[in-house]
Parts: sequence; structure tokens; C-alpha cells
Amino acid sequence: MDDKLFDARYEEYRVAVEEHLSRLFTDDVPWKKLNEAMRYSVLSGGKRLRPVLTLEVARLAGIRDWHNALPFACALELVHTYSLIHDDLPCMDNDELRRGKPTNHVVYGETLATLAGDALQPEAYRLIAEAPRLDAKAKIEAVAALAWASGANGMVAGQVLDLTDFGRDEASLRLLHDKKTCFMIKCAAELGCAAGRASIAVCEATQTYAAHLGLAFQIQDDLLDVVGDETTFGKPIGSDREEGKTTYVDLLGVDGCKAEVQRLTDEAIAALDGIGDTDFLITFAKKLANRDK
Amino acid sequence: MDDKLFDARYEEYRVAVEEHLSRLFTDDVPWKKLNEAMRYSVLSGGKRLRPVLTLEVARLAGIRDWHNALPFACALELVHTYSLIHDDLPCMDNDELRRGKPTNHVVYGETLATLAGDALQPEAYRLIAEAPRLDAKAKIEAVAALAWASGANGMVAGQVLDLTDFGRDEASLRLLHDKKTCFMIKCAAELGCAAGRASIAVCEATQTYAAHLGLAFQIQDDLLDVVGDETTFGKPIGSDREEGKTTYVDLLGVDGCKAEVQRLTDEAIAALDGIGDTDFLITFAKKLANRDK
Repeated sequence: MDDKLFDARYEEYRVAVEEHLSRLFTDDVPWKKLNEAMRYSVLSGGKRLRPVLTLEVARLAGIRDWHNALPFACALELVHTYSLIHDDLPCMDNDELRRGKPTNHVVYGETLATLAGDALQPEAYRLIAEAPRLDAKAKIEAVAALAWASGANGMVAGQVLDLTDFGRDEASLRLLHDKKTCFMIKCAAELGCAAGRASIAVCEATQTYAAHLGLAFQIQDDLLDVVGDETTFGKPIGSDREEGKTTYVDLLGVDGCKAEVQRLTDEAIAALDGIGDTDFLITFAKKLANRDK
Repeated sequence: MDDKLFDARYEEYRVAVEEHLSRLFTDDVPWKKLNEAMRYSVLSGGKRLRPVLTLEVARLAGIRDWHNALPFACALELVHTYSLIHDDLPCMDNDELRRGKPTNHVVYGETLATLAGDALQPEAYRLIAEAPRLDAKAKIEAVAALAWASGANGMVAGQVLDLTDFGRDEASLRLLHDKKTCFMIKCAAELGCAAGRASIAVCEATQTYAAHLGLAFQIQDDLLDVVGDETTFGKPIGSDREEGKTTYVDLLGVDGCKAEVQRLTDEAIAALDGIGDTDFLITFAKKLANRDK
């Protein structure tokens, strides 16, 4: 897909997501500090990869108007945001910087940061349950997919593996990243399929695509932690190594990682064979493989 | 209702809840420490008030078999359990004892306790979404009710109010407890109504009942913190005062609290007027008003 066309559509999705998110948690209530803390992290920029993927997959699946999928897309982003807030806590990674800005607990304190993360989870399910133009079956599929991806056998399992003495060989590291990162990126496709009532062919193709994309994304992230530019990347370079974490770079080397990102990207794109109108997803995968932030 | 009949039905519900919960998080997985931490708190006893209320309301609403409502009832208990784990954390109430046992973070450490709480939320929604014998409409009603009750305008708002300089007069304290306690108890009735496809009359009656019951429960809790027996109550007496928290006892005095519990219990029971088969709920309210733990 032509770069300009891709960028225009990406931007259309991204702006719609920002607008939808920016309307959340605006009430002037006695507990408004909680709203402030949630909005601080929810609206802290970010690439909005996951919701963009949800919206594009919903469009591809044949949804009448992709805007109808915004509650699903934003629900995923809320869960992703809660995970970042909690990951940064002193009892987790104890990070003070995220996307170039002070982390939530640095600004609001540990108590409120924990509670902001806690509240974002049910608010995500509320977005799904209250989505105005999707039916109950689609919503329940979305709830099940999101709960599975982010739950005790998904993202939280990945976080447990990451924080315990784990991930020393490639198989272990792959399991860790599958759980911690890939599940949520695959979930983005699942939510798009649920919203768009996708055919089995589109479900299989887009979810296989997303699973490969997710791992490529994580390996690229490990790479950028070694060879990236701190200002562009938004967090300190070398932080994984400082925290004593094994990364793909330790296992495969820089060149090995680059080759693996390319292989996974090719596989992601190959998974889309046989379904039409996939230009955006193909360009999306290629751009992610070449990102520097 | 005859005491023996009440106790037998309560016990039947309670045992079914325990059995359902005990089958969760049993897999032998590389992140099994997470499962252990979740099971430690999920299976730490407790009165199971909320799930019992869900099951009885589902029965009253006319569900074919109340066992079908167990996933909804247990989902609520998982969310309640997550809230207890996080409430006890060092950055929250910093409690070391809960129901007479060391709190989750004392046993598993702060990191795993936070993650166990984090994982229990999506697992609750998964139980609802995957409930085998309830339809999508009932499930979405349940998701919406649970997310609302436990979210940024519900339980977490209450926790924020509780941990900030708030709740000095009766209206503020009432708001705090409405959010922190009553919403979840009312939610128990809502989940029962959703599972049982209750009529509007049963919805209104049981939810008004539960809202009053919730506040009576909280005032009784404040009372027991002053006049209760430590061994029976399961946590140190006087802990509210030590933490500098304003309670109903400060505002209404011991006798005033007892009268208010009675008044709210009477109102709860009065709300059930006009719907049949409410013996169990009436006895339930009376027993709660007279509990010593």
C-alpha cells in the first residue's frame, strides 16, 4: 500500500481512538483524582497499535462502519494501559519513565497508581458491554477474548514469568513473550473479528497474522533496547540488561534478531493469503518491522 | 424462615460456591505460583455472602436450576477477593491479617499479591462469558453490572475516598460506603436477576433490598470493629480507629449504629413486599443484622 494512503488511514483510526478515549473519565466527582490518574496514562500518547489493528480487522471483516468497533478497540487499550501502570510500579519493574514521561506512580503516588490500574480493567469491560451498535453475541466473544488474553493464563502469566527467574532459553523466553505481549496483540484481531462478525477464514488469517506480528514486535523491542536511540525510543536504552533480564538479543544476537523479525513478518503476511483487501495489514507489518520506536 | 431450613439452604449454596471456586486455577503451569497466590485468597473461607445472595435471587427469579448461576456468583466473589488482596497491600491499608490468616502479600510478597489481584479481575469476566447454560443477553447484563459496581464509579471510587482525606460527615461516609461496599452487594442481586431473567418487579425489589442490606452490613462492620471479639471477627479490633478512619460509630455512637442497622434491615425486608417466596432473604437480612463476625 502507498505510504501516504497507509498513513492517512492509520491517522484516521488513531485520531478516532484518541477522541473516544479522551471522552472517558471526565466527570467532576469527589474521587476525581482517580480520573486524573487514569487519564494521565490513557492519554499519554502511544502508537495505539492494538486498537488500530482492531479497527482495521473489523473493517476487513465487513463491519458496516468501523467506528462501531471503537468501544472494543478502546477497551483493549484500557487493559493495555492498566498493565503498563502496574508494570512500572515499585514492586514490579520500578520504572520512572514511560514514553519519555514520568510514570503514573511517580506523578500520583503508588496507592493511586495501583487503583487507577485496578479501575481500568472493569472500565474496559464496561466499554464492551455498553457498545451501542454491536450485538450481545459479539460483545460476549469480545469479553471472552479480552479476559483470556489478559488473565491468569495470558498477560499476567507473562508478567509472573518476567519477574521470576525464568526465560533463560529461547523456548522459555518465547512462552514469556507469547503470554506477555503476543496474546494482547492477537486479541486485537479477535476483537476486530468479533465486532465485524468475521468469517472463519478471516478469523484464522488475521489472528495468525497478529500472533506472528506480536512476536516480531517484541523481538524488535528487545533490539531497540540495545541499538535504539533513547530520545526516539522514549525509555532508557539498556534497561533490560540493567535489570538482568534475558532478551532475544542475548540469545540470537543483533543480526539473528533482525533475521527473526523479518521471518516472522513474512509469516504474518503469508497468513493473509487468500483473503482480500489486506494491503493495510501488509504495510502495517512491514512498518512495524522497520520501526525505531 | 425456620433456622434449620435457612441454614441448610445457605450451606447448600455455600458448598456449591466453594466447590466451583476450588476447581479454578489448578493447572500445573510454569507460572503456578500465581495460581497458588490466587487460590490462597479465593479459598480462604469467608461467608460467601455475595454469591449466596446471587444464587438465592436467581432461584427467586425463577431460574430452572440455581446451579446454572454459579459462574456469575463466583465471578463476583473473584472480584471481591481481588479487592481484598489489593486493599491489604502495603500501599493501601497495609494489613497483615485477614480472616485470621496472614494476608496475601505477607505470604507471597507484594509483587505476586498485586498480580494475583490483577489476574482475578479478567478471570471473573471469563467465568461470566463462558458460563455454559446462560444466554448472551444474560451474560452481557452481568458483565455490565459487575464492571459498573467494581469500576471507577463504584468500588474503586470508594477505595479512593477511603484512602484520601474524606468521609468526615455522614453524607460523605455514606457515599464512601455506597461505593466501596453497597455497590458490590447490590451487584450480587443484579447478577442473580440477570441469570434468572427476573421480572422488573423482582429486579426492583431484590436490588433495593440488597442496597439497604449493604449499608446495614457496613455499619455492622464498623460496630464490630469497636465492640466485637477479635478471635470471632478475624481481624484486630479497633483497627479503623488506629488507622484514623471515621466510622459510623464516630458519627452515630454505638446505640445509634444499632438502631440504624435495624432501620436499614427493616427497609430491606419491606422492599421485598409484593413478591413471593422471600423467606430466605428475610431471614438472611435478620441474621446479618445480628452477626458477630
